[in-house]
Amino acid sequence: MQVGMDVFFVLMGSAMVLAMHAGFAFLEVGTVRKKNQVNALVKIITDFAMSTMAYFFIGYSVAYGVNFFSSAAVLTGATDGDGVSFAKNGYDLVKFFFLLTFAAAIPAIISGGIAERARFRPQLLATAILVAFVYPSFEGMVWGTRLGFQDFVTSIAGAPFHDFAGSIVVHAVGGWLALGAVVMLGARMGRYRKDGHVVGIPPSNIPFLALGSWILVVGWFGFNVMSAQSVEGITGLVAINSLMAMAGGILASLVVGKNDPGFIHNGALAGLVAVCAGSDIMHPLGALVVGSVAGALFVWGFTQCQEKWKIDDVLGVWPLHGMCGLWGGIASGIFGLEALGGLGGVTFLGQLIGSVSGVVFALICGFLVYGGLKYTLGLRLDPEDEYRGADLSLHHISAYPEEDTHA
Amino acid sequence: MQVGMDVFFVLMGSAMVLAMHAGFAFLEVGTVRKKNQVNALVKIITDFAMSTMAYFFIGYSVAYGVNFFSSAAVLTGATDGDGVSFAKNGYDLVKFFFLLTFAAAIPAIISGGIAERARFRPQLLATAILVAFVYPSFEGMVWGTRLGFQDFVTSIAGAPFHDFAGSIVVHAVGGWLALGAVVMLGARMGRYRKDGHVVGIPPSNIPFLALGSWILVVGWFGFNVMSAQSVEGITGLVAINSLMAMAGGILASLVVGKNDPGFIHNGALAGLVAVCAGSDIMHPLGALVVGSVAGALFVWGFTQCQEKWKIDDVLGVWPLHGMCGLWGGIASGIFGLEALGGLGGVTFLGQLIGSVSGVVFALICGFLVYGGLKYTLGLRLDPEDEYRGADLSLHHISAYPEEDTHA
Amino acid sequence: MQVGMDVFFVLMGSAMVLAMHAGFAFLEVGTVRKKNQVNALVKIITDFAMSTMAYFFIGYSVAYGVNFFSSAAVLTGATDGDGVSFAKNGYDLVKFFFLLTFAAAIPAIISGGIAERARFRPQLLATAILVAFVYPSFEGMVWGTRLGFQDFVTSIAGAPFHDFAGSIVVHAVGGWLALGAVVMLGARMGRYRKDGHVVGIPPSNIPFLALGSWILVVGWFGFNVMSAQSVEGITGLVAINSLMAMAGGILASLVVGKNDPGFIHNGALAGLVAVCAGSDIMHPLGALVVGSVAGALFVWGFTQCQEKWKIDDVLGVWPLHGMCGLWGGIASGIFGLEALGGLGGVTFLGQLIGSVSGVVFALICGFLVYGGLKYTLGLRLDPEDEYRGADLSLHHISAYPEEDTHA
Repeated sequence: MQVGMDVFFVLMGSAMVLAMHAGFAFLEVGTVRKKNQVNALVKIITDFAMSTMAYFFIGYSVAYGVNFFSSAAVLTGATDGDGVSFAKNGYDLVKFFFLLTFAAAIPAIISGGIAERARFRPQLLATAILVAFVYPSFEGMVWGTRLGFQDFVTSIAGAPFHDFAGSIVVHAVGGWLALGAVVMLGARMGRYRKDGHVVGIPPSNIPFLALGSWILVVGWFGFNVMSAQSVEGITGLVAINSLMAMAGGILASLVVGKNDPGFIHNGALAGLVAVCAGSDIMHPLGALVVGSVAGALFVWGFTQCQEKWKIDDVLGVWPLHGMCGLWGGIASGIFGLEALGGLGGVTFLGQLIGSVSGVVFALICGFLVYGGLKYTLGLRLDPEDEYRGADLSLHHISAYPEEDTHA
Repeated sequence: MQVGMDVFFVLMGSAMVLAMHAGFAFLEVGTVRKKNQVNALVKIITDFAMSTMAYFFIGYSVAYGVNFFSSAAVLTGATDGDGVSFAKNGYDLVKFFFLLTFAAAIPAIISGGIAERARFRPQLLATAILVAFVYPSFEGMVWGTRLGFQDFVTSIAGAPFHDFAGSIVVHAVGGWLALGAVVMLGARMGRYRKDGHVVGIPPSNIPFLALGSWILVVGWFGFNVMSAQSVEGITGLVAINSLMAMAGGILASLVVGKNDPGFIHNGALAGLVAVCAGSDIMHPLGALVVGSVAGALFVWGFTQCQEKWKIDDVLGVWPLHGMCGLWGGIASGIFGLEALGGLGGVTFLGQLIGSVSGVVFALICGFLVYGGLKYTLGLRLDPEDEYRGADLSLHHISAYPEEDTHA
Repeated sequence: MQVGMDVFFVLMGSAMVLAMHAGFAFLEVGTVRKKNQVNALVKIITDFAMSTMAYFFIGYSVAYGVNFFSSAAVLTGATDGDGVSFAKNGYDLVKFFFLLTFAAAIPAIISGGIAERARFRPQLLATAILVAFVYPSFEGMVWGTRLGFQDFVTSIAGAPFHDFAGSIVVHAVGGWLALGAVVMLGARMGRYRKDGHVVGIPPSNIPFLALGSWILVVGWFGFNVMSAQSVEGITGLVAINSLMAMAGGILASLVVGKNDPGFIHNGALAGLVAVCAGSDIMHPLGALVVGSVAGALFVWGFTQCQEKWKIDDVLGVWPLHGMCGLWGGIASGIFGLEALGGLGGVTFLGQLIGSVSGVVFALICGFLVYGGLKYTLGLRLDPEDEYRGADLSLHHISAYPEEDTHA
């Protein structure tokens, strides 16, 4: 019965995070130009399927040393060589599903950064490499026992690196991988003129952007709360902290972003990205501060990135997941302290080491993977294809085919 | 373990009602003109964040006397002065989340009535006032022990006022507050000509309207069933009654509304509004009758309101939440009786007193709050801004920005 | 407590499958032409309400011999004449809700096949007949004890017909009923020219098509996992098998369908249709094969159906639900065997008998019901109405009414 409850609990979390992938899709559909909407949709669902393969056959084993191949292990509840048992009711199977939905967030995050000009197959190959090897390497260090990383952090900082629901493991890693990808890929055609002029490329569809944000917001409560992974470990604190950080992110981005709908709907996500790491140990008022800072940070980072630094990260996934994730990982070492109303068990140094490790690891891997692909297969659409749009070039259909027949 | 289950249960309810806010957003996006779609989206998500602040810092305490400020109370499970304990696993924290999603429905309901011509900040201020003071005042009377209201009703009517999931507390209060707001705001420019001619303003997007309705419908099963607030209190009767009322609302509005998609998709909601109050005590056939009447009532009320009474309630939130909510509160005193197959424990008089109290309270407060704002800050957009649309005027962007670049 | 948990479990499943109906709606909205989008939305929600009536008053009793009419039975937990008790907490009531959401999938499946040219009321009458009599007849044979069908299969094949979540009972039955309906209705005007030329009719909106697919995908995990119907019976194996089949369906349709977004988003559904029957007994690698075959089968079947066989099944519901469902029912007799890593308890012959029985039954009933309606009330819109579109003809409004005012 208790195992059944845990399976049910983790299943609901899995379904909610699976739904978030639809959110990633529509956030991208709404932000890119019409001529690249189909490509956004196809990338997200295909990346999810490819991630399932990569994580099932390789990644999960890299992270946790679990081998899914043996029939006996999967179906009969036998214990495999590494001591992971596939208990009755298939708890370990649904836990795999849950963790996969996190792993698959990596390509979904990157997808928004490289939108509108990447080739399809090299990008799909990158997905396979990232989910099979790169992401689980760091995941296993933080959430598993890989390389004795947590022992190392504890020996230096007095406490292990705490990342409850993945501000660093998922979001910062995804966001800093995306930075490498975006730099390797270069800006969209016509975005930055040689005379220094920055040409705005307007989003196509704010309602779809908002729909994507809402789907992500709702699913996030599964992402965060179900990270407890058992009914016994569940805590309403995670829920209220996620709520407070989200509200803070919305209100801060409203003020700093001057009523802009894109900033507001991404501001909610910024707060949620930042609260993942410490949502189980911060006071709700701490979560409110963390989320508010994240909302403002996103607006600032997005504007700097696009206008000043001329990094053409289409959805702003580096500011959103990269910067706000990094902030969240470090902030857990501040607002998680008992002195600031938190539950403790963390140190600032430990959070700093863990957070910076993730970011540096991801940045290097991003340049390596996408750089490697750039100089071998090539990452970029032909100029003519980019001009026509990825939809017609790659998928031979537009997002609104009926309209084309009237032209 | 049992507490963990309750936390899980209430969390799922919270996530489902949180999702309903996306439903409110898209119902409004689909019904308003294109030039006000962004504003609809921004209002709903910002109102939600503002409601979180208002309810956390003030409203929850007004309703239930709970003080969230003390760190100890939140994190350690200490009992605060008013005897509410923050039990292990944070059950009280997730219950706050659940009740907040109800409170935030008040501005979301009103938003649809005042669409297309209200200024942004005064409306946001109204949200803060309503969720901090107005809504929790009545909420605490019915669902808490404020003012000894339930003892008073019982002493007169022989039974307390029964409002299981908020036909009156949430929907009627929201709908009758909206009536005051809509009257104070006045009709949209050009809606009613001086010669008495009524100018139809068509909705922009039926698929978005329907999407909003579907999101609300699905979330409603969390709204109603999770109102039990514990796994032990759950009853499948609430689920089947919600289902029957929804089906009745759809079929009645189909017939009365002559196949109109707006009526049919709102008809489902009308049935669900009306069934909230008595969903735990009515017979399924009673729920079917209650929902069918509500579906027909909505079509009639909407038409009267817009065409005859010239009240420019854009989404028809007063007929939907106000009238059908009132009907639901009273109907629980009929179909909840054992004589009509119900489980009893209610009286017609008790339901009448409670329902009318809520409606009168809300109507007065609606006129006071929105009247006060009208004659101080001003509620209404400048005519030029209204003509251009709230999107460009308030948010400096249209709903489909890419299209503007081709003009 | 345990009953409460089961009610909660089945309720979540019900909500998830209810949400799938929004998925059916948007899959159809995106695939049909703009002039028939409103009709798609109205059909799905009205069919759902009509199905609720048909299944509550007649169908559930046909399948399981349960009588909902007695107040005592519903509310007090009394046992009715047929031995079904309405236990405390209303478990049987929420189970009805869950099974209804399956029953209502029948008209939702057919709706996509007959889109763009069917009359509204005859189609609604067909829904009532199918959900009251046709579907529950076969449902009761497989999932109940009707006609001793399972005893018969067991006596011949050595094991009963295993259809865990309805590859045959729901999907194949729906798909093969649809085949009869589509043939009786005939192709859309102008689809197939007399000279043999096939005229492509492009979909209107790929994002809505994809939204529908995503909603279906997420809800499907409720459809499959909650088919256990109790927390004790839950198994993570169903979740991971659904995941693997979905991923296989996506990747196979990507390759066979040459990056087409419609094929890819339907390919996910094809995998999920096929895995329903054996998701509780197959090895995850078996599920991957089953789903991959289904994805390819859908692309092939859709193309053949539309181009070669000139069956104008608009959404391809016969290939999707009919063919892939049939494949799934039979495949459970292969990949469910212990020899292929499955949990056993099935035989190839038993699966073949059950699957073919369902398909033949549905095909005959489809021709009878829709043929009967064709030659009495008439099924087909007038040519002029079809040309104008079902939206203006039947619902007196277009999907984007504001746009019409500018024309």
